[in-house]
Amino acid sequence: MKGKFVTFEGCEGSGKSTQIRLLSERLKKAGIPHMVTREPGGSDIAEQIRGIILSGRNTAMCDECEALLYAAARAQHLREKVQPALEAGMLVLCDRYVDSSLAYQGYARGLGTDFVAAINGFAMRDFRPDLTLFLDISPRAAFERKHGADEGDRMEQLGLAFHEKVYEGYLKLAESCPGRIVKVDCSGNKFRTSDIIFALLKSANIIK
Amino acid sequence: MKGKFVTFEGCEGSGKSTQIRLLSERLKKAGIPHMVTREPGGSDIAEQIRGIILSGRNTAMCDECEALLYAAARAQHLREKVQPALEAGMLVLCDRYVDSSLAYQGYARGLGTDFVAAINGFAMRDFRPDLTLFLDISPRAAFERKHGADEGDRMEQLGLAFHEKVYEGYLKLAESCPGRIVKVDCSGNKFRTSDIIFALLKSANIIK
Repeated sequence: MKGKFVTFEGCEGSGKSTQIRLLSERLKKAGIPHMVTREPGGSDIAEQIRGIILSGRNTAMCDECEALLYAAARAQHLREKVQPALEAGMLVLCDRYVDSSLAYQGYARGLGTDFVAAINGFAMRDFRPDLTLFLDISPRAAFERKHGADEGDRMEQLGLAFHEKVYEGYLKLAESCPGRIVKVDCSGNKFRTSDIIFALLKSANIIK
Repeated sequence: MKGKFVTFEGCEGSGKSTQIRLLSERLKKAGIPHMVTREPGGSDIAEQIRGIILSGRNTAMCDECEALLYAAARAQHLREKVQPALEAGMLVLCDRYVDSSLAYQGYARGLGTDFVAAINGFAMRDFRPDLTLFLDISPRAAFERKHGADEGDRMEQLGLAFHEKVYEGYLKLAESCPGRIVKVDCSGNKFRTSDIIFALLKSANIIK
């Protein structure tokens, strides 16, 4: 692959989409060709699968089905969109990738990382990120950023408990892949975080 | 599991749905409670996934995505429909199951049976059929039964070549699982085939 593949990970409210937007603006100014995409989705078929995963009607979905659907959407998105861009030498920035499946389905849902890593190994084949930026903010702070400062109702608190598990999952993943996953403190000013991310891309030789 | 799980496999035109219907009528007359279902599909979410798999719009679907979608639909169908029926002591008759994925995606699409067996291992967990009836008819005869006696256009001929690979896959599966998969010659009269199937269910202690 001639291009570079950078993925952004983190809990809800960690600021992934903001940081991707800020980075993309910076890359445009620097004249660096790149593509921004997201998971689940990013291609027509993958967006249809996203529709099933996220539909409010599908409350009966079992965890195994959910994990397999994420993997199916990933396989399609990779081959249809990410692979051609990487082969064209493009820098690809992706909002969520396999580590989301490992943290959400593997750790937080309790399916286990072996299951999730195995099905995603088939889905991804050789498409492993060159660099993964884990936007590190405490789940409580991210939750408050997203839902306001009050603790919310029982369902929102259940949400927080779930996101604490997701966060723990991310920390374990970052520990086990120290070369690929880099933690980025994003509790402060978003422009300061953007500076850090730009510097990280340079030091990892993703951009010159 | 208190119930018994019987799956029907074979190429297009092998007469699976006819045989399931004839068997179901016979079981009704004999007062044997049973449930008829099918894959992909069989439950609301699984039918939504079926819609994506079979949609004429989705010609760009890659083989890995297809195989993962079949597995996702299977996981959901099992937990939502098959498992409760088996736990209630029901006899479940299913039109296509994991061997379809192995024959179609594993052999004919060329993904390999290791890949397909692994993702389906996760999807199925402990839900392995007690008995699988492979309706054995040459792919050419099945094809003619379905499409008429002429050889058809280029696409239909491509269809036949593909179905010949599927058939070879089924033969290999039957060879490797002699206890579970039973070949049923279905080239002749459908009522005669139905008699054979009823006798096989008795001799395998599926029904008394």
